[in-house]
Amino acid sequence: MPAEAAPSFVWIPELEGATTGSGELELSLEESHYLGRVCRVRPGDIVSGTDGRGAYAELRIVAVAQRVRAVITGLSRVARARRGWVCSGPPEGRRADWLVEKLAELGVEAWQPLECARGEWRTSAPTVARWRRLAVAGLRQSRRPFLMEVRPPQPLEQALGTLPPGSRLWLADSGGRRGLAPPAGDACTVGLIGPAAGFDDREKARASSLGFEPICLSDGRLRSETAALAWALWWSMGSA
Amino acid sequence: MPAEAAPSFVWIPELEGATTGSGELELSLEESHYLGRVCRVRPGDIVSGTDGRGAYAELRIVAVAQRVRAVITGLSRVARARRGWVCSGPPEGRRADWLVEKLAELGVEAWQPLECARGEWRTSAPTVARWRRLAVAGLRQSRRPFLMEVRPPQPLEQALGTLPPGSRLWLADSGGRRGLAPPAGDACTVGLIGPAAGFDDREKARASSLGFEPICLSDGRLRSETAALAWALWWSMGSA
Repeated sequence: MPAEAAPSFVWIPELEGATTGSGELELSLEESHYLGRVCRVRPGDIVSGTDGRGAYAELRIVAVAQRVRAVITGLSRVARARRGWVCSGPPEGRRADWLVEKLAELGVEAWQPLECARGEWRTSAPTVARWRRLAVAGLRQSRRPFLMEVRPPQPLEQALGTLPPGSRLWLADSGGRRGLAPPAGDACTVGLIGPAAGFDDREKARASSLGFEPICLSDGRLRSETAALAWALWWSMGSA
Repeated sequence: MPAEAAPSFVWIPELEGATTGSGELELSLEESHYLGRVCRVRPGDIVSGTDGRGAYAELRIVAVAQRVRAVITGLSRVARARRGWVCSGPPEGRRADWLVEKLAELGVEAWQPLECARGEWRTSAPTVARWRRLAVAGLRQSRRPFLMEVRPPQPLEQALGTLPPGSRLWLADSGGRRGLAPPAGDACTVGLIGPAAGFDDREKARASSLGFEPICLSDGRLRSETAALAWALWWSMGSA
């Protein structure tokens, strides 16, 4: 679809709980900048947006300033059809940045960075904040009504304790099954991907004991972030 | 697989036609730098490599200097099991760089950048040279015996005339089929992906007349380079 065919799409957390009669909304500095400087909207223009929690809104721009003001002209809500989580160890260098953007583009529900025996994130609060901005950029690009949750890095064991109950669990592993059709159905599907140097034997045994099934995503060795994206694409190709 | 488990892997075009009795090989400046500075090999170390055309060699380092010298201690050749081509229009900005790296990592045989009605590459010879270096980096990373061919950009119509005869043809299209199992068999499989602004109707009709089948790679709108990678991952998940 050509970009020019659709109105600008923005993330408006302020939409939560709003209705068409809510009056004027004042958008965040981030989204105001995006609309005013990048999309160059003018008063009277129609844009669309989401609260990142299933709301789809159509808005008419009232004023373009440091903070853009708009009124809601249409509002609907959708339920999430499919749930996919990605839990992954650190790749090399700054490769996580594009991974975040791509996972958000694909509609992943949550990304959980994992501290592993063979890889630590060494991230700070600004890094997590940057990742969250990238998730918003992915939401805008893909025009999705759900914002990907970017979780702060936590140790594997702790992270495994927070997965949605009843999830279907997959471990990216070159020794796993190949050529599988993408997953169907509405159960949450979780992909577990090791760091650049791989999971160690203890971590693999732990995943196996929890019911993670090995899946082989390619016939070659993939970088950690490529494997994470490969898993997310495989998930994303499925249907509810 | 942990990186430390395997010896360094390099691209040695000089291997073509070589045998274990060929005597010393002098490696390229690029690969010599990689082995000497990045991998920090020493004389006596064993490394492995490929000519990018199916040869797998084990080599013993003889001397580490501006040009590394090595002797072949083992050599075998494999035939290509699967063939995948990606033909894609220009994404935004410099996003093609990582696309090249990823496609090479996934074992794509050839990447053909397309000049499209709604997107031109505006590349120069140095750009194509940079892409080719990235393809070599992807080969090293994935330890594949085949180097991805990076073709210079050419117009869609001309590019379509160069596809291997008998190829199975897929057009990335949000209106296409979803949830397809990855392709099996050894026929060459071609993915056609539009530029950031999409193919125009004439281009789509042309692809359709040639037998390209629409495939939907995600339930959302993907950036051009994400769609190209999604298609390649889908292809890569299949088996011969």
